[in-house]
Amino acid sequence: MPEPRPGQLMSREMAEQPEVLRRLLDEGASPIREVAGRIAARRPRFVLLTARGTSDNAALYAKYLLEILLGLPCGLTSMSTTTAYGARPDLTDCLVIAVSQSGGSPDLVASTTAAREAGAITLAVTNNADSPLAAAGEYHVDVLAGPERALPATKTYTAELLALYLLVEGLRSNGPAPAAARLPELAARILAREEEVRTLAGRYRFAERMVITSRGYGYPTAKEAALKLMETSYIPALSYSGADLLHGPLAMVDNVSPVIAIVTDGRGGEALRPVLDRLRDRGADLVVIGPPLQAEAASAGFALPTEGVPEELQPILEILPLQRLAYEITLARGQDPDAPRALAKVTRTR
Amino acid sequence: MPEPRPGQLMSREMAEQPEVLRRLLDEGASPIREVAGRIAARRPRFVLLTARGTSDNAALYAKYLLEILLGLPCGLTSMSTTTAYGARPDLTDCLVIAVSQSGGSPDLVASTTAAREAGAITLAVTNNADSPLAAAGEYHVDVLAGPERALPATKTYTAELLALYLLVEGLRSNGPAPAAARLPELAARILAREEEVRTLAGRYRFAERMVITSRGYGYPTAKEAALKLMETSYIPALSYSGADLLHGPLAMVDNVSPVIAIVTDGRGGEALRPVLDRLRDRGADLVVIGPPLQAEAASAGFALPTEGVPEELQPILEILPLQRLAYEITLARGQDPDAPRALAKVTRTR
Repeated sequence: MPEPRPGQLMSREMAEQPEVLRRLLDEGASPIREVAGRIAARRPRFVLLTARGTSDNAALYAKYLLEILLGLPCGLTSMSTTTAYGARPDLTDCLVIAVSQSGGSPDLVASTTAAREAGAITLAVTNNADSPLAAAGEYHVDVLAGPERALPATKTYTAELLALYLLVEGLRSNGPAPAAARLPELAARILAREEEVRTLAGRYRFAERMVITSRGYGYPTAKEAALKLMETSYIPALSYSGADLLHGPLAMVDNVSPVIAIVTDGRGGEALRPVLDRLRDRGADLVVIGPPLQAEAASAGFALPTEGVPEELQPILEILPLQRLAYEITLARGQDPDAPRALAKVTRTR
Repeated sequence: MPEPRPGQLMSREMAEQPEVLRRLLDEGASPIREVAGRIAARRPRFVLLTARGTSDNAALYAKYLLEILLGLPCGLTSMSTTTAYGARPDLTDCLVIAVSQSGGSPDLVASTTAAREAGAITLAVTNNADSPLAAAGEYHVDVLAGPERALPATKTYTAELLALYLLVEGLRSNGPAPAAARLPELAARILAREEEVRTLAGRYRFAERMVITSRGYGYPTAKEAALKLMETSYIPALSYSGADLLHGPLAMVDNVSPVIAIVTDGRGGEALRPVLDRLRDRGADLVVIGPPLQAEAASAGFALPTEGVPEELQPILEILPLQRLAYEITLARGQDPDAPRALAKVTRTR
């Protein structure tokens, strides 16, 4: 048997994303809508989201959806308050959503069980219907991404995003926006542009650090891109919402600090504009992932085909070139993206 | 008039902290308790915290207090959902706490006003009773730190922590723990150990990056220390909860990456132990800020006098050597901690 090529697993799983999105739209949408209907009937008033790592970035995306589209106040759980400090809040009227690719992290299972005992409506969103987390939640959504073998999560991230989007649309008794049906094809078009990403990667081969920023719906993308870069290439990548960047970390950005901005085509991108102006004033090397006009105006860019895609669906596309960027930088540095040092696929934190 | 010495303002304001804590205990505790009583009578069921930068780290501390001591589910606000996307969630039964040193950020004022209109109980915690934010909230808590002139916030951070602690104790109809009275004296003892911190700073003068970790109550300290380091010394400092560190970023840590761990004396410190073991296995240069035994077992450390101080009060002490560390590293690098490039004291994000 030939030796596996470095990055072979991650490359294959990134390439599967159009197919995964299509499967979720074709086979996943209906069970998700049913779960959403049963949850909506119980009229949750607050939502708590629980996750770690890549799934935590998907949870943050859901927070924006829930607050903006549904007007439900949300929080991200500080898991240690339950697992280390034994807090037992009253969770009547709370919907607790736990998101995990493996469904195997003991702390997630423990905090979901505790939430259920505390009166919460609990929902597990996982890529494994047989996992302990799927069993711990009262409801379960399967993101149907198929087994993920590379350590850096890619297809399970975009599948989690789409599943959470379908869930939130279901909670407000909507079907998905018509543009959702175009996601698989748009994703395939973006993934085909490998050469463009490889050129971009050349820019960062020797970068000592990177700053990634966005605002609104794009902010989870910034966080997930930073995580992907760190866990594969080991480049310290700092992610900030544009507003937070101005509260301190901007001082760190100078003319040798590369900045990647994720500009969503919509209100988030508009709110980011003054931040990009400040970054340009500071002489930052600015790469924009976003609408063609803004990608062209930057030091370099990757233009996203977002015409007709509502802002809330764009994160599913935005992350694709950034996953690939992490992969290409890692290969260029002579490392194997499939197997970052020190990591395990199921992280057994408690 | 002589030229101001670099760091003169920050140094003076750090030194004022014992006095600020004492003033808050002597003059602030009673009005805070009164506000807490009026809020408790309205029986909030969910808390949303809104802040940016240093105050956001104080808000995160309050989230741990509220969840652990009070059993109230909490969330940190994603401000752009209101200010950029115009979300108008139903905030009946929600307590919204906005924390800001200046009380002047337009986005905080706008989101607090929107929260009040949406039915929330609103509380502004600021260092300026005459600020627009203090006027926007239904209730106000003054942290009484006196004017802060250095750009990096120091005394307003510890004052915000103590004020939020007094508030949460008030919400559960408690006075402060007896140990709170010892905070000014313990803070003074820590601040007197300048020489120790200067020695520690020598270690990081040429650091390209730093990782700062903690768990539970110490996690806000890790985030605030990272922010302080970034905005003064411009070192990219990445902060993670110990559990999140194991989900990806650990790959970035190698034997030339310095790690600072904040070990609280209690359950947070216990939950951090397996993370520290993993870091040691990876050959990380580990500096511990925490109890004497653990500080001694690390590559280097700063022992905190936490005997008898409950875990939830320790963050007020833990940050002190780290503020000073940021200051000393910045001076060692020939920069001025008082005036980081690119920053303004009131950040006018919208």
